Amino acid sequence: MKLQKIAWCSYSTQLLNAAVHALSSHNSSNSSSPASVVATIPYYRLYKTQTEFFRSLDYRFEGDTSSFLNISEAGKVIEFVTSPNNPDGKLNKAVLHGPNASAIYDRVYYWPHFTAIPNPADDDLMLFSLSKLTGHAGSRFGWAVIKNESVYQKMTEYMSSSSMGVSRDAQLRALKLINVVLETRGKQIFEFGYHTMRNRWESLSKILSLSNRFSLQKLGPRYCTYFQKIRGPSPAYAWVKCEREEDTDCYEVLKAANITGRSGSQFSAPDRYVRLSLIRSQDDFDILIQRLTQLVSEERQQQNHANNFLQLKKPLMSTLRRGLVY
Amino acid sequence: MKLQKIAWCSYSTQLLNAAVHALSSHNSSNSSSPASVVATIPYYRLYKTQTEFFRSLDYRFEGDTSSFLNISEAGKVIEFVTSPNNPDGKLNKAVLHGPNASAIYDRVYYWPHFTAIPNPADDDLMLFSLSKLTGHAGSRFGWAVIKNESVYQKMTEYMSSSSMGVSRDAQLRALKLINVVLETRGKQIFEFGYHTMRNRWESLSKILSLSNRFSLQKLGPRYCTYFQKIRGPSPAYAWVKCEREEDTDCYEVLKAANITGRSGSQFSAPDRYVRLSLIRSQDDFDILIQRLTQLVSEERQQQNHANNFLQLKKPLMSTLRRGLVY
Repeated sequence: MKLQKIAWCSYSTQLLNAAVHALSSHNSSNSSSPASVVATIPYYRLYKTQTEFFRSLDYRFEGDTSSFLNISEAGKVIEFVTSPNNPDGKLNKAVLHGPNASAIYDRVYYWPHFTAIPNPADDDLMLFSLSKLTGHAGSRFGWAVIKNESVYQKMTEYMSSSSMGVSRDAQLRALKLINVVLETRGKQIFEFGYHTMRNRWESLSKILSLSNRFSLQKLGPRYCTYFQKIRGPSPAYAWVKCEREEDTDCYEVLKAANITGRSGSQFSAPDRYVRLSLIRSQDDFDILIQRLTQLVSEERQQQNHANNFLQLKKPLMSTLRRGLVY
Repeated sequence: MKLQKIAWCSYSTQLLNAAVHALSSHNSSNSSSPASVVATIPYYRLYKTQTEFFRSLDYRFEGDTSSFLNISEAGKVIEFVTSPNNPDGKLNKAVLHGPNASAIYDRVYYWPHFTAIPNPADDDLMLFSLSKLTGHAGSRFGWAVIKNESVYQKMTEYMSSSSMGVSRDAQLRALKLINVVLETRGKQIFEFGYHTMRNRWESLSKILSLSNRFSLQKLGPRYCTYFQKIRGPSPAYAWVKCEREEDTDCYEVLKAANITGRSGSQFSAPDRYVRLSLIRSQDDFDILIQRLTQLVSEERQQQNHANNFLQLKKPLMSTLRRGLVY
């Protein structure tokens, strides 16, 4: 691993734009065209909204990574890579390579709660946050690990120009929490986190395996260097697909069953998809499971009725057909 | 007072850019030219550095307010007004008026510690911070009072896009502190603050009144609606001028006496000026006074030597002149 700089003490969400700023202005004082910022669909909406919000001369959000795959003359491109991905939990890797491409690895879900850790994260620019490590999202505390000294300095300058660094109250809270995590070398929180998330994923998978109407993203078992064994998936979110042709708005389908997800279009994906959060309180999760069970059981009852009807209809049809033939 | 919206819960410094963003994009979706951002010299440097830092399509820092006085065709202009002003403590008012002009009133020093309160602050967009109210600068907590609903919404959107709101740890600290201030309706902290700052200003004025080399900004007594009496000045900073023709770099003159101020150019003013902070710890202030006393006493000794020399020289010169005449 090369020398790394850690840009401590940032508001987690602010780090996204700080990184875009640093990579777009890095060595480009004379460059006239703004850098293109891209992400692979489905992606976390804030990459787009925040990048567009600042209306900078230096960068522009250009949407899906795939549209940049064959463009070598596209100028500077900054790729957001969320790994594991929000919403679908896949361990994404940067798609764009070459001298004009740089990646911002959003590693906020790269903890043993949510994914096997195939290897230590070692990308050039990685973002982490307290929110998904200990659940203290309200502290708005994150950090970045950066290999390039000049990018590090530009991100530090961003934090200082934007908010003169991070609240000391948030820092104190974060340091206390990180010390608690380290007391057991993470064992306590990671085992608790993994088993909780694993159980939730298994409950959810079991229910949806009975359904033809809804499907889940496919995630396989992987070797985890932290637990030193192969472990099954335990993602933060379910990325649910409505399989029936008429269910084009999966958000509304679930909403009708009193389940509020986040629609696919929020991730620039088709509305046939919905993200369900599995990291809410146990009560919330239990209610989710209860309502999904109800929904799937209704689907199966309808299916049985339809099957019975078909069973009934079949001899009748044969009779009719016979009647016609004969 | 018209209906006001309070945009709670912001990082104090972030509010500056949030306000610039809100005022420059407000009702201007079709406007092609960026808004001009100005401030009256001497002004707090961050207005310039932060506004330039974001390199937005919507606004541009254009320097001193005076250059915009006679330009009615200048398009949208946003004026930063710091009142009391940093560095010189003056109760500034907006200079630019008219349909294209809007002001951001930075009211972070508008507390009885630092100024008489001639009347309740009632500007369209005002910024406050915990930093100069209770001294908890490290919490990075500020708030804005905004009359225009759409500006309020744009600032709220800014906070949300930029950092998803403020750290709850900082909010808890801020609410606790504000409750303590309110326990005595501010009496305890404002009396302590005023008397401390007033004593410091008097000590400093007394020393510099003995000097011909250094002068202080002029601030007069004013009626204070909080204390309900006329009170003398008690600013947060001394805005010192080096009066000798050769002392063009006042920062270096003081630095040689082991006094580190902030040079005039940091406020876009001549380097003949230096800002000295009067809001540091009592120890720091005592050392400042000690070193200034030493500096002024050396000046007076030199002056006495020079006077004595002149006293000696005068008869000699007369003799010489007589010698020449005669």
